[in-house]
Amino acid sequence: MERFNIDNLIVGCGFTGITLANKLADCLGEKVLIIDVKDHIAGNCYDYFDKNGICVHQYGTHIFHTNNKRVWDYLSQFTKWYPYQHKVRGYIDGQEVPIPFNLNSIHQVFPEYLANLLEKKLIDTFGFNVKVPILELKKTGDKDLLFLAEYVYDKVFLHYTLKQWGMKPEDLDMSVTGRVPVYISRDNRYFQDKYQGIPMEGYTKLAQKMLDNPKIEVKLKTSYQDIKSCVNYKRLYYTGPIDEFFGFTEGELPYRSLKFDFVELNKPYFQSGACINYPNNYDFTRIGEYKYFLDNQSDKTVISFEYPQNFEQGKNERYYPIISKENEDLYQKYLSKAQKEKNIYFCGRLGGYKYLNMDQAIGAALELFEQSTRG
Amino acid sequence: MERFNIDNLIVGCGFTGITLANKLADCLGEKVLIIDVKDHIAGNCYDYFDKNGICVHQYGTHIFHTNNKRVWDYLSQFTKWYPYQHKVRGYIDGQEVPIPFNLNSIHQVFPEYLANLLEKKLIDTFGFNVKVPILELKKTGDKDLLFLAEYVYDKVFLHYTLKQWGMKPEDLDMSVTGRVPVYISRDNRYFQDKYQGIPMEGYTKLAQKMLDNPKIEVKLKTSYQDIKSCVNYKRLYYTGPIDEFFGFTEGELPYRSLKFDFVELNKPYFQSGACINYPNNYDFTRIGEYKYFLDNQSDKTVISFEYPQNFEQGKNERYYPIISKENEDLYQKYLSKAQKEKNIYFCGRLGGYKYLNMDQAIGAALELFEQSTRG
Repeated sequence: MERFNIDNLIVGCGFTGITLANKLADCLGEKVLIIDVKDHIAGNCYDYFDKNGICVHQYGTHIFHTNNKRVWDYLSQFTKWYPYQHKVRGYIDGQEVPIPFNLNSIHQVFPEYLANLLEKKLIDTFGFNVKVPILELKKTGDKDLLFLAEYVYDKVFLHYTLKQWGMKPEDLDMSVTGRVPVYISRDNRYFQDKYQGIPMEGYTKLAQKMLDNPKIEVKLKTSYQDIKSCVNYKRLYYTGPIDEFFGFTEGELPYRSLKFDFVELNKPYFQSGACINYPNNYDFTRIGEYKYFLDNQSDKTVISFEYPQNFEQGKNERYYPIISKENEDLYQKYLSKAQKEKNIYFCGRLGGYKYLNMDQAIGAALELFEQSTRG
Repeated sequence: MERFNIDNLIVGCGFTGITLANKLADCLGEKVLIIDVKDHIAGNCYDYFDKNGICVHQYGTHIFHTNNKRVWDYLSQFTKWYPYQHKVRGYIDGQEVPIPFNLNSIHQVFPEYLANLLEKKLIDTFGFNVKVPILELKKTGDKDLLFLAEYVYDKVFLHYTLKQWGMKPEDLDMSVTGRVPVYISRDNRYFQDKYQGIPMEGYTKLAQKMLDNPKIEVKLKTSYQDIKSCVNYKRLYYTGPIDEFFGFTEGELPYRSLKFDFVELNKPYFQSGACINYPNNYDFTRIGEYKYFLDNQSDKTVISFEYPQNFEQGKNERYYPIISKENEDLYQKYLSKAQKEKNIYFCGRLGGYKYLNMDQAIGAALELFEQSTRG
């Protein structure tokens, strides 16, 4: 087979790869071939409008939020934003209460006198509009604040975390455990970032606009294996799994994955917001209701039940790198190999074995573009 | 080119010019030529009904309010009024809360015991139904009132003002800063004026009615430059920029401008009122939702995101004179020149380099009519 030449080969058509493709083509006028094994662009941010006009996130709820003005302005060239501000509630003792657990949550689940007492102690001790880790509550030695810390640990954190990571309680790292916050505020939002929203026409449309350049060729259902023997490139940006690139020689980097059960319901709304956590009931961690993101109007609604599970090749998708000393060491072995490669850049969540929010991924891609094309 | 004669030439077809035209034609039976560079009448008050029957204000939200019965009665000859009373809310800590910050706002953002405490201290110290500048709160030396003052400064005033004027915090004039009020009241309205409303058929229709006199000729897309060499007049009323009239000989008077991003949404309502400020999120200052003004009924809604920016000739419109000693001095130079002109009257927001509410502009025009036609 004859080899063809391309300036840049990008493996993976998620937002890391798309950002690189966009910058290489738009700013440098270079040719880009971007491939993905999936049959669609936008990676795990992929969404689509269903027959009822509801924008469904196929790989689970995605909310864009950032304090990075550069990233926000960059994306705003390609999309308007629906000014959605994310609120998460947890189904706790039979009610949908704000998460992180805040003053409103306290008033929802506790009787009035106890709520007032907790509220006053919290504000007097820590001030207003601050997030306080439950470990700090325990340290006060106050029996009411201790009660609150234990309530939050047990009802909000513990069982959710066990489901999310498939762990047993004894495996829980106490340094993580103590970090669960109580938010001494009536702000029910999950994020306080300056910029927050959902692309007005969805993530997929945003991705399309970023790729809309004659210098960019997109090949779907194509793996790096399929193509590597027939392409010469000046630079390779690899956003796939770094262990796979090296043939798993050092072993597999483990990931946690998710399974989604989508259901269409014949009613306008199912729950009080886009995301309700179920720490203490069922085996799913949460239910997503998609019409809330863009306020799609319909007599129907689409929800998804989200079941965490381990990643298995060929069965599901890689979602969350699993943080541990052992896995970090394994990743470092691959990183050493990677650093010996010339003109190959490993990036993105799978390339760097690191959880990245969308804004972090795009911010890092913008930086990598500059770094890798300098001088 | 032959010159033609007209009793009165009016430059600018905003409400200052329109009021003058109306009075000159209706009361004196004089001929009026009124011109505007825009392709429509009503200046920055221009509005139109879109395909969904929503009355959109093309240059941002305009609410008529006045205590001046003369102005109200004058306009009421030409329009009925929809008795809209304006309420502004700010998106603060995840909620839409009344602005100016009032007792309802306090109960929305603070927990109950703290809200009750603040409410009692405010009323005991300052009384009920008064607007108290945060500087006065600070002066009490009370730690809770100080907390409130700082909260309002930070969450309501500071970041909004920085966006509105494109300033850095260190450029903020402390004498202005301290004037931000807390309204010790449960009145959520933005204005307490006796008369308040929206012209039942919109501002443009009101303007049309005022100009509906055979003695008045309207020429659009026409500048003073275009016409000045071919017209003789008894009086010239100039509501355009005074610096432009004199060829910018002393320098340009700076203005702050606005950019609007209009979006039609496929839902009945987007927010809880016509105007929500966003002090702490995004780069726009506020979102306007137009159907609230006349309560237009539609399954759709139109909103606008409002981005302050500096005025640039040919790029955007003049909105707000920028108050400073330097600019005031510059304006005074032009004013001295203006005072030497015979039978030329500089008026309106641009003619006087002064922010005027609609009622002030119309009131001033009524007075100028009398003054300039006396004896």
